[in-house]
Amino acid sequence: MNVSSIIEKLHDRDPRAIARAITVVEDNAPQAEDILSSLDRSRIDHALVVGFTGPPGAGKSTLTNQLIKVCRAGGSRVGVIAIDPSSSLSGGAVLGDRIRMMEHATDPDVVVRSMASRGRLGGLCAAAGAVSRVMAASGCDIVIIETVGVGQLEMDIARLADITTLVLAPGLGDEIQAMKAGVLEIADLIVVNKADLPGSDNLMMDLQALRSDGLAILSTTAVNGDNVVELYETLTALDKEQQENGSRRQRRHDGAVLEIIDWAMDMVRPIIKERAVFLQQTDDPRQAARLLVDGFLHEKE
Amino acid sequence: MNVSSIIEKLHDRDPRAIARAITVVEDNAPQAEDILSSLDRSRIDHALVVGFTGPPGAGKSTLTNQLIKVCRAGGSRVGVIAIDPSSSLSGGAVLGDRIRMMEHATDPDVVVRSMASRGRLGGLCAAAGAVSRVMAASGCDIVIIETVGVGQLEMDIARLADITTLVLAPGLGDEIQAMKAGVLEIADLIVVNKADLPGSDNLMMDLQALRSDGLAILSTTAVNGDNVVELYETLTALDKEQQENGSRRQRRHDGAVLEIIDWAMDMVRPIIKERAVFLQQTDDPRQAARLLVDGFLHEKE
Repeated sequence: MNVSSIIEKLHDRDPRAIARAITVVEDNAPQAEDILSSLDRSRIDHALVVGFTGPPGAGKSTLTNQLIKVCRAGGSRVGVIAIDPSSSLSGGAVLGDRIRMMEHATDPDVVVRSMASRGRLGGLCAAAGAVSRVMAASGCDIVIIETVGVGQLEMDIARLADITTLVLAPGLGDEIQAMKAGVLEIADLIVVNKADLPGSDNLMMDLQALRSDGLAILSTTAVNGDNVVELYETLTALDKEQQENGSRRQRRHDGAVLEIIDWAMDMVRPIIKERAVFLQQTDDPRQAARLLVDGFLHEKE
Repeated sequence: MNVSSIIEKLHDRDPRAIARAITVVEDNAPQAEDILSSLDRSRIDHALVVGFTGPPGAGKSTLTNQLIKVCRAGGSRVGVIAIDPSSSLSGGAVLGDRIRMMEHATDPDVVVRSMASRGRLGGLCAAAGAVSRVMAASGCDIVIIETVGVGQLEMDIARLADITTLVLAPGLGDEIQAMKAGVLEIADLIVVNKADLPGSDNLMMDLQALRSDGLAILSTTAVNGDNVVELYETLTALDKEQQENGSRRQRRHDGAVLEIIDWAMDMVRPIIKERAVFLQQTDDPRQAARLLVDGFLHEKE
């Protein structure tokens, strides 16, 4: 398939063309730039990008799954990007997502992609942002980016979303650390999932006490769908507010800057790597790196 | 303290100068290059760098602690770098190391540094390599680099070591995934810790069946010190072998290349970042990044 054919078909919601475009973009293959620059911009502007982040075990996948149901019941087309930045050692999570997502597997209006680091550092934030635009251009009204964990990479990916949702659950022992990690600062919404478990009231109270202005807190029990409609309504209300007050526009700009940095680093890495392997003098790696970077920046003088 | 004074004192094993040098190097502060290029190279050549990697819960910290005891009993000076690349959400591990390491806190011949990502992506591999050289130059005969998890970053850090040790334990459910993740390929030694737990015999058998030539497997029960002397002897025997057959030299070169790439990326990142934040046109981040990198590489023409 050539680029114009991929583009035409993905705008027509053709599953094969969408899958193909996502793969090209994710791999940063030669056609990636042409595909990304030909996407329907009005659809990208239209789609709401929601990020779900939080510690493993908080029930993000189950929540995503329930939210898909609510979206579909309302006629919205949904994209889901499930990201596990760590190696296959924690690949169970991605596999789990896939399995749980199976109930939507035959629904052409649910577009799902799991992404892992594939043995590379970097580039995942760039790829996630680009894939979310492909999904939006294919007509998705909402794109959910789900990340496992709340490390730096996950926080960067969360910043790509219009609305960042931190999903917690009682008994994970990570609640207080989450506060310290600064995740609260980037969250627009906190969901206390597994609200049926003991400890959820205390967790809600702790969070109420800690929250800053404008941070919404909601409890859900994803496993039986409790309050997921309310979650959907909260998300759309927050989005409406952010569109009206201009913060969505600002966030998209800020997210784009993060993505640009990640793309640029990903483009520079092979150049640096190629030069590094040919270095003879490696006794002092920091000095070798400085000389390499100096040469790299000034050799065209 | 100026650089020559720091260098002189750290070569004299002065704890304050060592701590100061490590901080400068870890932060990549202005004095870093001068410090790193002035380190006693014969001591760096002398020190054995051992990497411990493996899933959380395998008992790496307890094992490290016991190995320190064995080293100290034999008169060796020890450096320990405990790395947790994820955010403070899993910071418990680092804190745990620190607490467990407390029993050596008053021993001037045990140099310990915990390192976390500090909210940055990248640079951790570079910093770990450089800090291990500072420790070696301060007279450490053995430097242990302990990482949590077996993601790409951890595997890169593990490659900085002369001997990479994969620490597993029965019942973590991660054993088979570890194989798939390719960790086995970079390991020189596998330690099945918690050998007193049920399932350890089966795990040993599975590993024996999977192992490639030259991969040593050892079982320990770190919590009561069982077989830790044997671990130490295995490490020194492996090191002797690698020094004799030239593979230590080759590994140090390969590790240096990885470290150079990480330093270089870390030096390039702020330049890219500074340019990205001033971009006006951010609708197509991948294209914006390409233009940025193109300009960056060719502007001096």
